[in-house]
Amino acid sequence: MTKFDAIASRLEGQAIELPSWAFGNSGTRFKVFGQPGVPRTVEEKIADAAKVHELTGLAPTVALHIPWDTVDDYAALKAYANGLGVDLGTINTNTFQDDDYKLGSLTHPDAAIRKKAVRHALDCIEIMDATGSRDLKVWLADGTNYPGQDDIRSRQDRLADALAEIYAALSDDQRLVLEYKFFEPAFYHTDVPDWGTSYAHVAALGDRAMVCLDTGHHAPGTNIEFIVAQLLRLGKLGSFDFNSRFYADDDLIVGAADPFQLFRIIVEVIRGGGYGPANPDGHSGVAFMLDQCHNIEKKIPGQIRSVLNVQEMTARALLLDREALGAAQDTGDVLGANEVLMDAFYTDVRADLAAWRESRGLPADPMRAYAESGYQSQIENERVGGTQAGWS
Amino acid sequence: MTKFDAIASRLEGQAIELPSWAFGNSGTRFKVFGQPGVPRTVEEKIADAAKVHELTGLAPTVALHIPWDTVDDYAALKAYANGLGVDLGTINTNTFQDDDYKLGSLTHPDAAIRKKAVRHALDCIEIMDATGSRDLKVWLADGTNYPGQDDIRSRQDRLADALAEIYAALSDDQRLVLEYKFFEPAFYHTDVPDWGTSYAHVAALGDRAMVCLDTGHHAPGTNIEFIVAQLLRLGKLGSFDFNSRFYADDDLIVGAADPFQLFRIIVEVIRGGGYGPANPDGHSGVAFMLDQCHNIEKKIPGQIRSVLNVQEMTARALLLDREALGAAQDTGDVLGANEVLMDAFYTDVRADLAAWRESRGLPADPMRAYAESGYQSQIENERVGGTQAGWS
Amino acid sequence: MTKFDAIASRLEGQAIELPSWAFGNSGTRFKVFGQPGVPRTVEEKIADAAKVHELTGLAPTVALHIPWDTVDDYAALKAYANGLGVDLGTINTNTFQDDDYKLGSLTHPDAAIRKKAVRHALDCIEIMDATGSRDLKVWLADGTNYPGQDDIRSRQDRLADALAEIYAALSDDQRLVLEYKFFEPAFYHTDVPDWGTSYAHVAALGDRAMVCLDTGHHAPGTNIEFIVAQLLRLGKLGSFDFNSRFYADDDLIVGAADPFQLFRIIVEVIRGGGYGPANPDGHSGVAFMLDQCHNIEKKIPGQIRSVLNVQEMTARALLLDREALGAAQDTGDVLGANEVLMDAFYTDVRADLAAWRESRGLPADPMRAYAESGYQSQIENERVGGTQAGWS
Amino acid sequence: MTKFDAIASRLEGQAIELPSWAFGNSGTRFKVFGQPGVPRTVEEKIADAAKVHELTGLAPTVALHIPWDTVDDYAALKAYANGLGVDLGTINTNTFQDDDYKLGSLTHPDAAIRKKAVRHALDCIEIMDATGSRDLKVWLADGTNYPGQDDIRSRQDRLADALAEIYAALSDDQRLVLEYKFFEPAFYHTDVPDWGTSYAHVAALGDRAMVCLDTGHHAPGTNIEFIVAQLLRLGKLGSFDFNSRFYADDDLIVGAADPFQLFRIIVEVIRGGGYGPANPDGHSGVAFMLDQCHNIEKKIPGQIRSVLNVQEMTARALLLDREALGAAQDTGDVLGANEVLMDAFYTDVRADLAAWRESRGLPADPMRAYAESGYQSQIENERVGGTQAGWS
Repeated sequence: MTKFDAIASRLEGQAIELPSWAFGNSGTRFKVFGQPGVPRTVEEKIADAAKVHELTGLAPTVALHIPWDTVDDYAALKAYANGLGVDLGTINTNTFQDDDYKLGSLTHPDAAIRKKAVRHALDCIEIMDATGSRDLKVWLADGTNYPGQDDIRSRQDRLADALAEIYAALSDDQRLVLEYKFFEPAFYHTDVPDWGTSYAHVAALGDRAMVCLDTGHHAPGTNIEFIVAQLLRLGKLGSFDFNSRFYADDDLIVGAADPFQLFRIIVEVIRGGGYGPANPDGHSGVAFMLDQCHNIEKKIPGQIRSVLNVQEMTARALLLDREALGAAQDTGDVLGANEVLMDAFYTDVRADLAAWRESRGLPADPMRAYAESGYQSQIENERVGGTQAGWS
Repeated sequence: MTKFDAIASRLEGQAIELPSWAFGNSGTRFKVFGQPGVPRTVEEKIADAAKVHELTGLAPTVALHIPWDTVDDYAALKAYANGLGVDLGTINTNTFQDDDYKLGSLTHPDAAIRKKAVRHALDCIEIMDATGSRDLKVWLADGTNYPGQDDIRSRQDRLADALAEIYAALSDDQRLVLEYKFFEPAFYHTDVPDWGTSYAHVAALGDRAMVCLDTGHHAPGTNIEFIVAQLLRLGKLGSFDFNSRFYADDDLIVGAADPFQLFRIIVEVIRGGGYGPANPDGHSGVAFMLDQCHNIEKKIPGQIRSVLNVQEMTARALLLDREALGAAQDTGDVLGANEVLMDAFYTDVRADLAAWRESRGLPADPMRAYAESGYQSQIENERVGGTQAGWS
Repeated sequence: MTKFDAIASRLEGQAIELPSWAFGNSGTRFKVFGQPGVPRTVEEKIADAAKVHELTGLAPTVALHIPWDTVDDYAALKAYANGLGVDLGTINTNTFQDDDYKLGSLTHPDAAIRKKAVRHALDCIEIMDATGSRDLKVWLADGTNYPGQDDIRSRQDRLADALAEIYAALSDDQRLVLEYKFFEPAFYHTDVPDWGTSYAHVAALGDRAMVCLDTGHHAPGTNIEFIVAQLLRLGKLGSFDFNSRFYADDDLIVGAADPFQLFRIIVEVIRGGGYGPANPDGHSGVAFMLDQCHNIEKKIPGQIRSVLNVQEMTARALLLDREALGAAQDTGDVLGANEVLMDAFYTDVRADLAAWRESRGLPADPMRAYAESGYQSQIENERVGGTQAGWS
Repeated sequence: MTKFDAIASRLEGQAIELPSWAFGNSGTRFKVFGQPGVPRTVEEKIADAAKVHELTGLAPTVALHIPWDTVDDYAALKAYANGLGVDLGTINTNTFQDDDYKLGSLTHPDAAIRKKAVRHALDCIEIMDATGSRDLKVWLADGTNYPGQDDIRSRQDRLADALAEIYAALSDDQRLVLEYKFFEPAFYHTDVPDWGTSYAHVAALGDRAMVCLDTGHHAPGTNIEFIVAQLLRLGKLGSFDFNSRFYADDDLIVGAADPFQLFRIIVEVIRGGGYGPANPDGHSGVAFMLDQCHNIEKKIPGQIRSVLNVQEMTARALLLDREALGAAQDTGDVLGANEVLMDAFYTDVRADLAAWRESRGLPADPMRAYAESGYQSQIENERVGGTQAGWS
């Protein structure tokens, strides 16, 4: 049995949630470039996501962003998704695109606006009830642009109150995951800027409140795998938003900027018990999601590349010889321990993964399979007219 | 004579160019919040800029961005501006909002697209001829998002060729200023990411090509005043784009994030001969411009605050006791030299500046004067309907 | 009554602890430059600290670093200090200069070395009993240089166990403050790299365990005043290590690099109740300490400058018109709120502080008073021979 | 013929210069941990370097640091090295450890100290004459710690004058390479902080002055391969100091922190003509050097690991299918072009390199060969007494 054979079974069941918005247009403040074939409706987004899953077997669920993906009948939407072989996943709140939220949402000085933002989250929980989603993901654009603009401390207190109100509305099998982000769109202070703040809030809320770690939301030089290890140790790592970055929140394809970092992150996920099936109570599983922008590359192959990157790094991480690693660590063999880790990273798993896919009825090379499938030209031909989906 | 009296005359003639786009809507990729009273036309932008100048005496010119500010008759536009007491200034090219430029403009792999971008710059030079503008400012969004996407080296060569073609079209009293930017909208590599690259290109072009230093376009921790000193030493500091930042290219009000840094920058400008009237040949003057976004604050008072910040720091920098400073520096008195510098920075010049303004027929407090002027409510009432100006 | 008069009484009792090691030699890995007059003994360090207090009235206590400041009789040392008008303060552990600690101390893979490090901390607590110190400050150099070198997760668990053992040895009126540091001397991962990690540990320990915030120990761009506000809100801000930085942990004079940041930090300290006398139980007061290196400037005036900087920014922060600020914040007046804050920062308090000092029998200008005191030439003449103190 | 076979011949002749100081003790300002077996003399350093070359075939030269490696007879030292199968390489100046240089060397305000520093460089050129070294490497610790401490502009002028004096003393077959460094040991400003400054100076000096790029000497987020491409384009890339970093100038083993970055750098070196034999004039070859600290790991295997990392990434970079890459780039196939690049990076070349080594009489696994050679225990037994080499 090869080394790969020994870990092959652990690749089964790997599931990476796709964000519906990755299939819509996105860009920077300078320009959003449109692309032919981009979905006009949430159904078209789900169809594209289903295509990714069909070719990779890695992406069984799709996250929704409310109100971008608002529909009248979520049960029907779920049935539609199921018919395409996927399911609906995390529900994402959005309290950053209404004029009322210019100076904040859950932290706004005006109680009426905080109430509106809480109401939006409660509405999202109702959608979760309809879709059967486990996780409500809360990312806030809240913050200030100028020193003195608002009271940092009061905003934390308002935030705690608002989150408590939302948390109280969750059913026992639902979770709240609170995402943090270093900066942007606020430029002086952000109300949930780091894992410590997110952790302090979710610890105060209760067992079903967890931290969401977006890999692009850290200060330069931050050791992300350390945070992964710490949150798993504290029992509070709820989910990942995967992407990659060179500078700020670049939202590039996961693994594109620093593949070795992605490898180290997954090594710590596995080490800390965050990989594999959730505990029987269903509450402790870490959710793996993408949160990316394909500003210039094509959306569907961009998503295929992304889930493959996660899978390839997972295979490498699973190949890590933990016994040899532990032995080197325990004897203080710095170079030896590093070499064991690097050996796993440098192992080229691509051919083995291709064979593994074929043995499961999947295309050996999902990128090529997509290119040859004709799907891209089909959607470019069919999706004419209407308004392409984007961040609004 | 007070210390302030001794430097008061050197404040005369300080001129800070306003960007027309600062009066339009702006925001982040997440949301552009509109504001009542925002201009719908370039004329309305100029009117707002003229109001800033009227109240401060600091902003005699307005920079235009093409095609955002395209009009049929630039001579008429100039006459309109003159009628309001201001003039037209720098012409800014824009090669980042056309679909053709998704993968680059002056550096694009396709010669036809490079030609189109060069053509745009040549058109801008024609506008300069009509407006009497001295400076053509070239900022490029060019870069790549993924390693391998394009050939870094070839793009430099294409850039050099394109710039040479543009430079050749300038008349003897016109200049090209090449702006650099660390990142955004490109996230893997940017074609003009640092002052060294801009310098290498403008040095190759000739005497009338200069570097534009945008204070927000640097890596974390970069000592900007060093670059100012270096470019002045090399005779290549063409202009400033002032703004401030805590993180990336935040485009906050100049001096808002780190007033001491703004002070140090201006100290080096004065030290290096970049402050005051240009040399007789008219080619060596450093242009002081703002390039900011008032995403959440009101535009006109945002601009007033900005020019006042520059003026206040200029006054402090002029108060620097260079004799005492030099004496301390020459004797290696580290703390003494620092104290001389800090003494200038900590001197509260605001009351003196208020008196100085009044003595010149300007309001003592331009911010309050604007608030009491009724102009804001007037434009909010009058500018109804139409499409508010923004970044497109 | 002037504005300054209204806040003058709140400046009474401000106390900033001086680090004994600031008077010894320090430098970088490239070179430690010696200076004439540097102390050879802890008594000489205390004498220098007492001189700072004599001239400023701001520095009534001196922190010790063990084993750098080890003596046989701490009661005698305390009496010596008291005789000079100061007292002994925080006791700092040191588990980074023994060969055993090359790969860690409280987190070391070898239980025997962890035990040794714990033993050192327990010894420090015994010293606290003798000196009457309230705070045991634990800063760890623990971390790894290469990915894989040791198990990140296991090190956290070992750390938690070791801290629990140390904490258990504290008496009811003693506290443990756990300092975090982004990086250095470890370069891949640090075991306590951020406030979140320190907070998670001290929250697990109990009420008398608190976080120590060193202003130089953060990632680039980190909003430190936010952390101040957050830790005060969570009741876990134990102490400050003040210094300033442009790049990494530069350990420059507090306020030298970004005086506006120091102002904002103190504004949040006051806002959050961290300034002024401790609660009756004696456990909640935030300790203000310096932790700096005067690598090239003279040590004693370097310390004088530092405490003056803190005092000046405290005066400015106290001058903040919180009523006007709150009114502007509540109405969403972004520029107005910022202007209220900036007004306090820009107010030149130096003359008022000079008068305030004189009215209390202190020199108006402590820097000049030191220069004219003859103390520097005295110690340079007297302290000849022996081994100058440094970081070992 | 396999893909590897096709590039194997291009691996011949790869030469990476070892720094003599990598075999001595090093550390941080907190602690330098000694190691058994560390050289006491320059001869012992050379012996260790020769062992690295014996086992890898990659390290035919050793760089010297003056005065750390000062000897009476350089011709004899060269003969000694030759006898061990290696040669002497670059001569490094050191103007940062003498008390005179506390406030600068080539930029010092005092002309006498500048003269002393120039004299040191001239002495180093005399050593080059004796050793036959081509390159004089100048790295300066010059800078200031506090704003105002010295005049930034004047220091540039003094630097230019001093460099001109040194450059004039070079013979026609000697070069000056000027290294830049973002910060440390200076913390406010550094006199040669970026490639632009180094470039401006060497361009002014002449053809035999070049830039030295140390991979650890950049601001966070800097795209280093861009600088490589730019300097090669400008004909001014003289040499590399390889190492790696997560935070500041960590000086970790090259390729340890971000192997993908090392790959991209070498891709640009090859693309720009910087790899392979120098031009006939002998002046244009890029020198590949290590500049690292093995603070906690063993020195000799640390150096072996380093040269192997460079070799492995060179092999991957040579495997890049430039035809396919160019085709994808020219058609704007973003994901396709990136995939071609990643294919080269992900190719596991280790087994091929092992075979390649064996075919040339080298051990397949130099790390294991070293471990089994007995050399480490030999030097640990023999090198007892004396003073271990370090940074002084």
